[in-house]
Amino acid sequence: MRPSGRAPDEMRLITMEPGFTVHAEGSCLVSFGDTRVLCTASVEERIPPFLRGKGEGWVTAEYGMLPRATHTRGSREAAKGKQSGRTQEIQRLIGRSLRSVVDMKLLGERQITLDCDVIQADGGTRTASISGAWVALRIAVDKLIAAGTLTTDPIKAKVAAVSCGIYEGTPVLDLDYIEDSNAHADANFVLLSDGNIAEAQATAEGATYDEEALLRLLRLARIGCTNIFAAQDKATGR
Amino acid sequence: MRPSGRAPDEMRLITMEPGFTVHAEGSCLVSFGDTRVLCTASVEERIPPFLRGKGEGWVTAEYGMLPRATHTRGSREAAKGKQSGRTQEIQRLIGRSLRSVVDMKLLGERQITLDCDVIQADGGTRTASISGAWVALRIAVDKLIAAGTLTTDPIKAKVAAVSCGIYEGTPVLDLDYIEDSNAHADANFVLLSDGNIAEAQATAEGATYDEEALLRLLRLARIGCTNIFAAQDKATGR
Amino acid sequence: MRPSGRAPDEMRLITMEPGFTVHAEGSCLVSFGDTRVLCTASVEERIPPFLRGKGEGWVTAEYGMLPRATHTRGSREAAKGKQSGRTQEIQRLIGRSLRSVVDMKLLGERQITLDCDVIQADGGTRTASISGAWVALRIAVDKLIAAGTLTTDPIKAKVAAVSCGIYEGTPVLDLDYIEDSNAHADANFVLLSDGNIAEAQATAEGATYDEEALLRLLRLARIGCTNIFAAQDKATGR
Amino acid sequence: MRPSGRAPDEMRLITMEPGFTVHAEGSCLVSFGDTRVLCTASVEERIPPFLRGKGEGWVTAEYGMLPRATHTRGSREAAKGKQSGRTQEIQRLIGRSLRSVVDMKLLGERQITLDCDVIQADGGTRTASISGAWVALRIAVDKLIAAGTLTTDPIKAKVAAVSCGIYEGTPVLDLDYIEDSNAHADANFVLLSDGNIAEAQATAEGATYDEEALLRLLRLARIGCTNIFAAQDKATGR
Amino acid sequence: MRPSGRAPDEMRLITMEPGFTVHAEGSCLVSFGDTRVLCTASVEERIPPFLRGKGEGWVTAEYGMLPRATHTRGSREAAKGKQSGRTQEIQRLIGRSLRSVVDMKLLGERQITLDCDVIQADGGTRTASISGAWVALRIAVDKLIAAGTLTTDPIKAKVAAVSCGIYEGTPVLDLDYIEDSNAHADANFVLLSDGNIAEAQATAEGATYDEEALLRLLRLARIGCTNIFAAQDKATGR
Amino acid sequence: MRPSGRAPDEMRLITMEPGFTVHAEGSCLVSFGDTRVLCTASVEERIPPFLRGKGEGWVTAEYGMLPRATHTRGSREAAKGKQSGRTQEIQRLIGRSLRSVVDMKLLGERQITLDCDVIQADGGTRTASISGAWVALRIAVDKLIAAGTLTTDPIKAKVAAVSCGIYEGTPVLDLDYIEDSNAHADANFVLLSDGNIAEAQATAEGATYDEEALLRLLRLARIGCTNIFAAQDKATGR
Repeated sequence: MRPSGRAPDEMRLITMEPGFTVHAEGSCLVSFGDTRVLCTASVEERIPPFLRGKGEGWVTAEYGMLPRATHTRGSREAAKGKQSGRTQEIQRLIGRSLRSVVDMKLLGERQITLDCDVIQADGGTRTASISGAWVALRIAVDKLIAAGTLTTDPIKAKVAAVSCGIYEGTPVLDLDYIEDSNAHADANFVLLSDGNIAEAQATAEGATYDEEALLRLLRLARIGCTNIFAAQDKATGR
Repeated sequence: MRPSGRAPDEMRLITMEPGFTVHAEGSCLVSFGDTRVLCTASVEERIPPFLRGKGEGWVTAEYGMLPRATHTRGSREAAKGKQSGRTQEIQRLIGRSLRSVVDMKLLGERQITLDCDVIQADGGTRTASISGAWVALRIAVDKLIAAGTLTTDPIKAKVAAVSCGIYEGTPVLDLDYIEDSNAHADANFVLLSDGNIAEAQATAEGATYDEEALLRLLRLARIGCTNIFAAQDKATGR
Repeated sequence: MRPSGRAPDEMRLITMEPGFTVHAEGSCLVSFGDTRVLCTASVEERIPPFLRGKGEGWVTAEYGMLPRATHTRGSREAAKGKQSGRTQEIQRLIGRSLRSVVDMKLLGERQITLDCDVIQADGGTRTASISGAWVALRIAVDKLIAAGTLTTDPIKAKVAAVSCGIYEGTPVLDLDYIEDSNAHADANFVLLSDGNIAEAQATAEGATYDEEALLRLLRLARIGCTNIFAAQDKATGR
Repeated sequence: MRPSGRAPDEMRLITMEPGFTVHAEGSCLVSFGDTRVLCTASVEERIPPFLRGKGEGWVTAEYGMLPRATHTRGSREAAKGKQSGRTQEIQRLIGRSLRSVVDMKLLGERQITLDCDVIQADGGTRTASISGAWVALRIAVDKLIAAGTLTTDPIKAKVAAVSCGIYEGTPVLDLDYIEDSNAHADANFVLLSDGNIAEAQATAEGATYDEEALLRLLRLARIGCTNIFAAQDKATGR
Repeated sequence: MRPSGRAPDEMRLITMEPGFTVHAEGSCLVSFGDTRVLCTASVEERIPPFLRGKGEGWVTAEYGMLPRATHTRGSREAAKGKQSGRTQEIQRLIGRSLRSVVDMKLLGERQITLDCDVIQADGGTRTASISGAWVALRIAVDKLIAAGTLTTDPIKAKVAAVSCGIYEGTPVLDLDYIEDSNAHADANFVLLSDGNIAEAQATAEGATYDEEALLRLLRLARIGCTNIFAAQDKATGR
Repeated sequence: MRPSGRAPDEMRLITMEPGFTVHAEGSCLVSFGDTRVLCTASVEERIPPFLRGKGEGWVTAEYGMLPRATHTRGSREAAKGKQSGRTQEIQRLIGRSLRSVVDMKLLGERQITLDCDVIQADGGTRTASISGAWVALRIAVDKLIAAGTLTTDPIKAKVAAVSCGIYEGTPVLDLDYIEDSNAHADANFVLLSDGNIAEAQATAEGATYDEEALLRLLRLARIGCTNIFAAQDKATGR
């Protein structure tokens, strides 16, 4: 039995509120249950130095967590003067995930930065970030298309992410904080709407796992991402 | 004529949504028009080293701005590895302002940290932060009283803050971003519900000002804070 | 009775020693009693990036305190690897204050940096810094004029600053360290020789204050700045 | 055809030189072809604060790369003043991997730090690090057992890691730098000698991949790790 | 011919003004010609962690240079967030030099920090710092003796330092900035009043030097330090 | 009697393994007994800003120590976020020493960076670094000559360095860690194969020394460097 009473393959309630803030070219407040992340997409007509003169664009991400997003207050990274290894690992993952669905030639020489800031945390902040960031990106790119800046859509597919894990011996979908703290294995899958995988990460915590478990977790992730794709369609009016 | 069409002594719409997040002992999402700040109060049963053994508590504040809270994206302070002078100046002001209404002996040996994170910026983020932080603090202290941890209320008064300035020659209340960028003087007043002043700061921008102007700005601030005190009462059910 | 035996509206002895160092284009060792600050003005034929191509100059300031300027040794900011919030707040104030009397178009595309380093501290280091920095600036600009680099004087007025506060219930002028540590309110006024105000900051410490007190403090500041303007005239031979 | 002429399931030459340095309790210079990593295990009779009083030990890792380990010189992280996100991600992975085979209760209240420093890089530095760090750890723990400090072996299994990827459409084992730079997918598997998985990470680069590809990469990794386990046995005299 | 017209073995004018600041237990403003350094000695009743429980004291030093001590303005180390290698090298030298004349057992469990801050620079700032720091130290220790805190004098000798170099082929004493910038070799000697050497550093710049030159520089340094010892005696009233 | 049984003027075994790594333009693993340092020379076709347009090259050095190069593990400088004063002092010395034998005009507008990373430490790491760095530099420059990039050899001489000290009253050559920890004076000499001195540094530790001792240490250094020059010749095939 899961602490939340959910079935093993049951997601938490997913909500996506597009346009949550007014200044960003795209924005979305995404909730996976009590986990809430504000995702914004900022379009800038400049590219990082390593891309100069290649006629390509770039998509990158930054991740942060408000100090009291968590059960007990954590220290503010800006005050400590450095981002933790965990923060850097997550923002690199978000960036890679979103880049996997964008054709950089079609995007042209501009950069889109996805800021994912966790307002409230209850497990799965990185997967909610990826899923919500896609909505912010989709809205920002739609504006570029509407403005005639882009004529061909550079977004090749939807991308969503969800966590799975082995909790008390049972593979379960979309871990909340209590489950996450006690899971024997913790996996994050980043899946595309065309069925392909952008990233799979499965980490043993305490106990290692076997190949069969890995596959079962992947199957759960497919169920979860199907739900998220639907929420993304709804949020972007498709 | 103000760009927003407001009268010189007219505040923007103030909203205060208590309990916006679930983990913090107190929280409030405060809006002054398009400026929105999430304020949380975190109670910790420890005090900073300089207070050890004095039987007193402490109230402090931290301030941050999401990178795309603004019209164009700013860099993330955690990524840059340091907080700007502006950020530090603001969080010191918030801390001082809230401490001005708390009896530290009555609070006892515990610390309350007020985190003010700007979700969206349109001028007046520091004054909205102070005003909303009081609500978060009030809620947190009420919980300590309800739990019997505190028997006497350590909060002596309400505290609110508002900006004023001289815009195209006219003293106006509660500047939004457009007015703030073009004002000849920019003042912030932190006022108490008992009529006293906790802090007054008036800075010339481009043109200096005279004593009469200072007093006129203070009078506008009194009007603004009366509105904010009412919103604080409503948000805390008083 | 003040610890120093001064009358409530009595300044400490002000001395200003122009040309204290030889390399800087302008320099002044200013003393407000035991508070001593070395102010230098450095002229550079370059401007910060945000001003490029505008045909304007810039005036900025940096502030520091020698580790043993104070009663007990403080840590060295260079060794700690960051400037404190207090330091940043003060140097921003000094920069704003000096900019309020300079016509940036007339200054032309050059930058003047005012370094204010506290040799010895006994209260009022930021106000002594502003007052002494004006002398350093005046000397440096006079050299530019004498050299024919500038034909019209870009300095519009003198600027001076002084602290005031409420000490044991009485508003007093130019607080020394003992008074400052025990004052109920602590104000800093930056005034111009044309009678206008560049900056007013009044902070409650422990007890808040009312509008009448604010005005009385301002009146004391006017008395103090009159003395400082005279010392500035003497130091610059006007 | 692979640039090195290797078969798709062929590892590079693996060498492990135990005791490469004299001070560390355990050390190993591991080579996967031209990739060479010096791994040391340092035993300290102290534990991190979060474990105090739990009667458990800790295993952690740090990773670094000499500036000219690579084809062109990279900047020195100590000189830049921060570790890159990549470095932090890798050292977190190494630490987790080694912890997956250690019984912390049996290790007792001591910490073992595994330093993995890349002397020369040609792809696969993180997997060589994990594989070599196990040898350093094994040697250090054997000394603790020989000295009577430990009576029961806290190491539960061998752990090894290898990279795989899809290069020009073909899944291949143990990518060198040229392959790594051009692979469509890049996976790292951390496997235990008991057949279980400690960590699986598979990242799409440019093109995403499907479930079948993930499984084929895992099968290649099993072949590679069998070779590494043999090299570990030889290096530790088992 | 030296630019200053001095003879090869002629020092610049040395002045030492004891008690330049009031808060420090010892202070001295030392001048070697236009080089001026403020040296303070701060006594603290605590010792660094590595000395705990040994019954010994410690003497350490910190060095800094005001941004406009030099001909052109340098950046402020506190603002840059790190001390340069040059600064660290110099402050380590000052600390070692002063420790060479103090009996740490006799000093007892307390630390004396010597802050050397360059007000104006014209070559030889490190040697002026060492020479002036001794005066500050002497004054501070005399106060400890006068107060009865120390009964036996822990200072074993005077220590002084001076630079020498080979300028246009001639060994010269006490280089000023112009000579220092053009010298073929640059040496710093730290000598004790008992005739012994605490530190010798001789660096080739452009051209290397031979053993005979090293000895000639040392002989010049002995002449210079004799002068400095006299100035130290005068400043400390011996 | 020395702990190692060596005669006072006896060096440890010196080995120099050229070409230890494959990517760097020059490399050498140098051993002075148990002290082992990996030195690499990286040639880059760019120069530091202060040399632009002068038609000269530059030689610089960086130094590091692996965390467990030492008897007990030290913290990693990259993780601490700053290089120690000791590290900076050493890398500045290495750079100066190598520059003393290079004609920068002949080198042309390119920079050679010498990275010296201590794999294992047993005293004398800075002197081994200088001696080994020369071999790496020689190899890199030989490649530039072989490639026709340089037509005239910019290296004017060999440079070597060795430590000496006074151990239990006797001047000894090439101190190992035990001697170094207990020496009364610790000197490092950087000598050229033409007989000249590039740098001499002699520091008293605990007891000061006299002029005669300084000269005796220098004579020992000449013996040591003669050995090192021979090893350098052998390593570079001359």
